[in-house]
Parts: sequence; structure tokens; C-alpha cells
Amino acid sequence: METIVIEVHTGREAGTFDLTPEIAAFVAGRGDGLVNVFVPHATAGIAIIERGAGSEFDLIEVIDHLLPRVDGVYRHRHGSEGHGADHVLPAFVPPSTSIPVLGGVMALGTWQSVLLVDTNVDNLVRQVRLSFLTSV
Amino acid sequence: METIVIEVHTGREAGTFDLTPEIAAFVAGRGDGLVNVFVPHATAGIAIIERGAGSEFDLIEVIDHLLPRVDGVYRHRHGSEGHGADHVLPAFVPPSTSIPVLGGVMALGTWQSVLLVDTNVDNLVRQVRLSFLTSV
Amino acid sequence: METIVIEVHTGREAGTFDLTPEIAAFVAGRGDGLVNVFVPHATAGIAIIERGAGSEFDLIEVIDHLLPRVDGVYRHRHGSEGHGADHVLPAFVPPSTSIPVLGGVMALGTWQSVLLVDTNVDNLVRQVRLSFLTSV
Repeated sequence: METIVIEVHTGREAGTFDLTPEIAAFVAGRGDGLVNVFVPHATAGIAIIERGAGSEFDLIEVIDHLLPRVDGVYRHRHGSEGHGADHVLPAFVPPSTSIPVLGGVMALGTWQSVLLVDTNVDNLVRQVRLSFLTSV
Repeated sequence: METIVIEVHTGREAGTFDLTPEIAAFVAGRGDGLVNVFVPHATAGIAIIERGAGSEFDLIEVIDHLLPRVDGVYRHRHGSEGHGADHVLPAFVPPSTSIPVLGGVMALGTWQSVLLVDTNVDNLVRQVRLSFLTSV
Repeated sequence: METIVIEVHTGREAGTFDLTPEIAAFVAGRGDGLVNVFVPHATAGIAIIERGAGSEFDLIEVIDHLLPRVDGVYRHRHGSEGHGADHVLPAFVPPSTSIPVLGGVMALGTWQSVLLVDTNVDNLVRQVRLSFLTSV
């Protein structure tokens, strides 16, 4: 299995980070198969949504509503105010997804981008593992 | 990798659409492996839930509550009232899932169906890609 | 494809159950690939989150808030009070995930555990299927 780890500089703001170009580069030339995108962190996830028309900011607001960033709500309490929310996030925005690849190109729809979702303001750099599986 | 695209006529109502029979037909005779179900659209997802006892309608109501269909809530604003909600949906109900296949049959539980979840009332026809991976 | 089914005794309380040790034992010695974790039940899901610092309890509370356990809310109504909630859960906390494996070891992050999420108080024992795919 071909596999690499990329680094994403996520900074101190909750946000989304486009992984699509790096995944596209990773699968280029590999033929047909599945690419698995996996985040080895307990406070981040992967979302496949449109980017560039506002939805990536809408997502962060919905997450804030579902998982309020206030202390006192969560048993898990350390780091920044409301950091317990970040630890619940990956149950709803999972850290693993798989995307079909055809002729070395992801079979994404026109408006789909693969985004790292990171609401954690205490970690500045994140890793993402990309793995490619072919079939016999 | 064996892969096909099927079309689903989803109409102008938010709803769920059972993909189970078409996936079952696709994997029939293929032996052991994983079938990946992938929706190449930015406003739809896949859910594996029970169908026929009301839960598919309960899901649409919970989505309406989590993602209210009103303008003014979302930055992404075009199309029908509250369409911005549709663009957040795939972060929570992802467009990709993988299901084990044994002897050409999906290893689903008794009450599990594989449903396309499409709250977007502006798109009448959707595509779904089915891909089968075997192992050496 | 190598595949096994394990049993998890989940009892009569909503909760999470750590699958990490059994998955680790299953993939040990298998080299590189993807392990798929699949729950063949319509009222349970898989979450990859931290365990041991409270987040597994925070998750159950967030689920209770998103999916209130009261009759009258859901069309699907049988079993215990609010059981309809359990049938919506897998749309948001899906029953399938895949994790990269390198040299027979899951490539999890330091704080990630693979948990079965089971809010259903009427089923005491659950099955989980583990499947390993290698690549050519």
C-alpha cells in the first residue's frame, strides 16, 4: 500500500483547510483504486463539501451551535475555553474517508473539495495520512 | 477495480432513496471484498439506517432541526430557500461509505439499508458511484 | 479478504465500548493495508475519539441533545422510551470506518481510540465485523 503523511498548518483559528490539491498529486499516475484520507488526531475531521461559496464558514458555525465552546458543558476540560467540544467533533465529522480514483484522478463531483476540519485552536500543525489501495 | 455509476431520480422533495438493491446487484458474484458507495455531489450523503418503519422520515426532520432551511442563516445562498443547509449536510452525513462483501453478498445487518440522503430540492437526478475492491 | 466478527457486551446503558485492543490484535502481523470496522446493526455507530478523559461521556450527552430520547418526536416508535433516536444515530455516527494499517499496526494518533457507540438499551450484545484489505 502506498501511503504518505502530509502536514497542514492550521493556525490558531477554527477553520477548514483544503486537502484536495495534495490528494490529487498523491494519486496522480496510480491508476484505479481507493484513496483513504485519515487524520491521526482526536480533535479534527474530514468533510467533503463545496469550498469557495461560504459553506466552509457555515460548517464552522453549525459546529459551534451543535458543540458550544464553553467550559462547564464538557467533562473533558483542559486547554482553551470550550476545548471539550473539539474532542466530540470527530464522532460527527469523522477522521476517515475513502474516495474512488480512476486513472489516477479522484472521482469527485464538480463542487466537492476534501477539507480538513480543525476547530482546535491549540494545535498549529496537523498531520493527514493518504493511502492508496488498488484491487487485483 | 470494478466501478459503475448509477442514477437516482430524487425529485423535488427532500428525502431518502434506497440504494440497497442496486448495490446488492453490483456486488453479486464478486466474492469477498469491500464495496465503496460514493456520491459525487456537494449536497447529498449516504446513511445506513433502517427503512420502512419511519426512521427515514425521522432523519429528514432531525436534519431540518440541525440545519434550518431558512435564508439568512448561511453565507452560501442561492437556489431555493435555505439551500445553504444542503451544502453543510455532507459534513455530517458523509458522501462515502464502505461495506464488507462476503461471497458476493453485503454483510449488512437485518435492519440496515443503504440510503441516499438528498435534501436538495433543486436537483432532480443524482449519481452514485459503486466500486468494488478485493484483496490479494 | 481476512474478516472476523467480534461480540461486544453493551448492557442496558447507553455508552461507548473500546474496540481498539481487539482491532489491534486482529491486524497484528498482517503488514500494510486498511482495516474496515463495520457494525451490522441499525442502532449503533463507530466513533474515533479520545477515551479516558471524559469525551466518551460528553459524546453521549451531545447525542441526547441532538436526538432527544422522548416518544412523540419520532415516527419509529417501539421498545424503550425514545428508542426512535437510536435509529437516527447511525446517519450521524456511521457504522463503518476504515483505518490505515502499517506493518500490522493501526496508524492511529496518540489520543485516538475506536469506540462502538451504542445508545440502544434494549440490545445487550452487539456484533462488529473487522475486515483487512491489502493492496497489490
